Amino acid sequence: MNFQEIIRKPTLIVDTARVERNIARMVKRCHEAGAVFRPHFKTHQSGLLAELFRQKGVEQITVASVSMARYFAQHGWHDITIAFPFNIREISELKALEQYTKINLVISSADTLAAFQESLTNPYDLFIKIDTGYGRAGIEAGQTDEVEKLFSLFQHSQNTRLAGLLAHGGHTYRARGIHEIQQIADEGHQKLDALRKKLDPGLLISWGDTPSCSKAAMKYYFDEWRPGNFVFYDLMQYHLGSCSLDDIAVVVACPVVETQKQKNRIVIYGGAIHFSHEFIEADNDFRLYGYVVRFTETGWTAPVAGAWLESLSQEHGIVRTSHELNDLKTGDIIGILPVHSCLTVSALGQMLDLNGSLIPCMK
Amino acid sequence: MNFQEIIRKPTLIVDTARVERNIARMVKRCHEAGAVFRPHFKTHQSGLLAELFRQKGVEQITVASVSMARYFAQHGWHDITIAFPFNIREISELKALEQYTKINLVISSADTLAAFQESLTNPYDLFIKIDTGYGRAGIEAGQTDEVEKLFSLFQHSQNTRLAGLLAHGGHTYRARGIHEIQQIADEGHQKLDALRKKLDPGLLISWGDTPSCSKAAMKYYFDEWRPGNFVFYDLMQYHLGSCSLDDIAVVVACPVVETQKQKNRIVIYGGAIHFSHEFIEADNDFRLYGYVVRFTETGWTAPVAGAWLESLSQEHGIVRTSHELNDLKTGDIIGILPVHSCLTVSALGQMLDLNGSLIPCMK
Repeated sequence: MNFQEIIRKPTLIVDTARVERNIARMVKRCHEAGAVFRPHFKTHQSGLLAELFRQKGVEQITVASVSMARYFAQHGWHDITIAFPFNIREISELKALEQYTKINLVISSADTLAAFQESLTNPYDLFIKIDTGYGRAGIEAGQTDEVEKLFSLFQHSQNTRLAGLLAHGGHTYRARGIHEIQQIADEGHQKLDALRKKLDPGLLISWGDTPSCSKAAMKYYFDEWRPGNFVFYDLMQYHLGSCSLDDIAVVVACPVVETQKQKNRIVIYGGAIHFSHEFIEADNDFRLYGYVVRFTETGWTAPVAGAWLESLSQEHGIVRTSHELNDLKTGDIIGILPVHSCLTVSALGQMLDLNGSLIPCMK
Repeated sequence: MNFQEIIRKPTLIVDTARVERNIARMVKRCHEAGAVFRPHFKTHQSGLLAELFRQKGVEQITVASVSMARYFAQHGWHDITIAFPFNIREISELKALEQYTKINLVISSADTLAAFQESLTNPYDLFIKIDTGYGRAGIEAGQTDEVEKLFSLFQHSQNTRLAGLLAHGGHTYRARGIHEIQQIADEGHQKLDALRKKLDPGLLISWGDTPSCSKAAMKYYFDEWRPGNFVFYDLMQYHLGSCSLDDIAVVVACPVVETQKQKNRIVIYGGAIHFSHEFIEADNDFRLYGYVVRFTETGWTAPVAGAWLESLSQEHGIVRTSHELNDLKTGDIIGILPVHSCLTVSALGQMLDLNGSLIPCMK
């Protein structure tokens, strides 16, 4: 597709061949590790791209919210884990889904469990959210008393069954290299396995994060893998070593609206409302919001050396250019490899494939 | 309205009395400064809130994109400036609006002007975008030759008329205190006025940014003011001294999904997809994403001392709590004053007023 002809404003472009390759690779790794694959769909948020997973035999999925569970339930997914400390304000929205879809829930507090036991009538599988070191949500793995207290509240419950322990290895995003990623997976496994032995050997252990699922050796570590970002990858994952630049499956096509030759910059239509404000910080003076590529007849090039998206405001982006981009003029279309594909998809809400066909998303 | 009862997920709440007060104050300041008020509507993006401006006599507005111009044209606005270096990929979308709405355009390059002169048939008023020091888009005010070259291309044109010079004083966002904000406005005025004298004394000078329009003395400096953020303000503006905490007219209501008493933290449903990733940086270890308030019968309280939104991931927010928030449990609703209201509105897409009535936005 000639994107120079069809693009009018910032548009997410997806290379579905790369998506299929990323899915196939992860399915294989997960299978070889002896785990069930339950990919997180918050990255692509698309019922159409979800079919590429179905073609690879995937039937169980993960989502981030009740709204997202509803969207994928409507697209024919019948076994969905909402991997977020459940928001009890949405119990009625949850119950509206239960007839046709098995929804699995995550909790980290007795308050929430009490609300479930009071309000739910049909049985649900629950996971206790454990914090193995990320430091965001969940009960810290070391707080064994807390975990046991919550575990004990499951006894004699008709409508809630403890299915397992769930953790997100999000601290791999702060890792420096594969060695630290491996360490985080190893520690996660040790901590979760010790808890399981203490509570009930029949519990499942569910684990998810793209860096460890992409690169760590985790044979028979976890019963279930929930990576999400790998479907598209992005510059953050490339930076961490989870993927190569060739694996990145999305790019944002942006019109050039101003050239600033003397300053070696161009202004693009493409800002924080399209990319989100996430960046990679190299030091106090340098923030990377994206790399620059050009579209070709069959996709896009490798990043142009010495050029990057250096700042964003609401609708504008400022690109630092190199001499290779001296030919650009207003109205030309360039591509930006995003720092965080999940937030970029969420911001843009739909995408085009390389043939120019629309791929709708949840938003 | 009892938000504890009605809120299910992250929801933007607007205090329309504060909005009206903010509009009235700015209309008065602008009038006293002898300028035309052409507020930027990218902050609220709501046809309904726009009516509060109309009630104060506002008829001319500013928007950030062709899509936003179309939205407000459909809501009965007939004189709209698109304050963005025009994206020539959207010329046909522009022409679709011209019959019922006067659209004014901004350019910064000869390429774009040539595209207009080739494609437009009806006459348009154009502004040359001048950079008075912000360093984002526009021709630098000191590059007089560049400005004159572009100016000369307007001669003998039937369909494009140079109406004026337009600048965004966005560097006030980096100012430390009112003295620097005043300095930026003074310099902006001097630079733009000098250019006007050189080119054509009949040109309009259009200026916009919330800090200077809120606080600087700018009597007879500019012909037109285009502030936007002042309608809601936010923590960034409070931080700059543009407003008091009482002027902030929006807050995001978020459910508590986990309490972490030992760590003095709570986890809320409310993340980067709701707030954007913008923050105020105090030093390398401290990022402020929002302050915490509680809802009352008539609105919300002042921020709770010692509590703030300290980090965000896609759907989660981590709030550092103080002893005043020890009573919070999962399912409770708290309010977060956002760092950047424009991006928060853009992310959430609609709001409720204090009576619980829905105020739709463009998204």
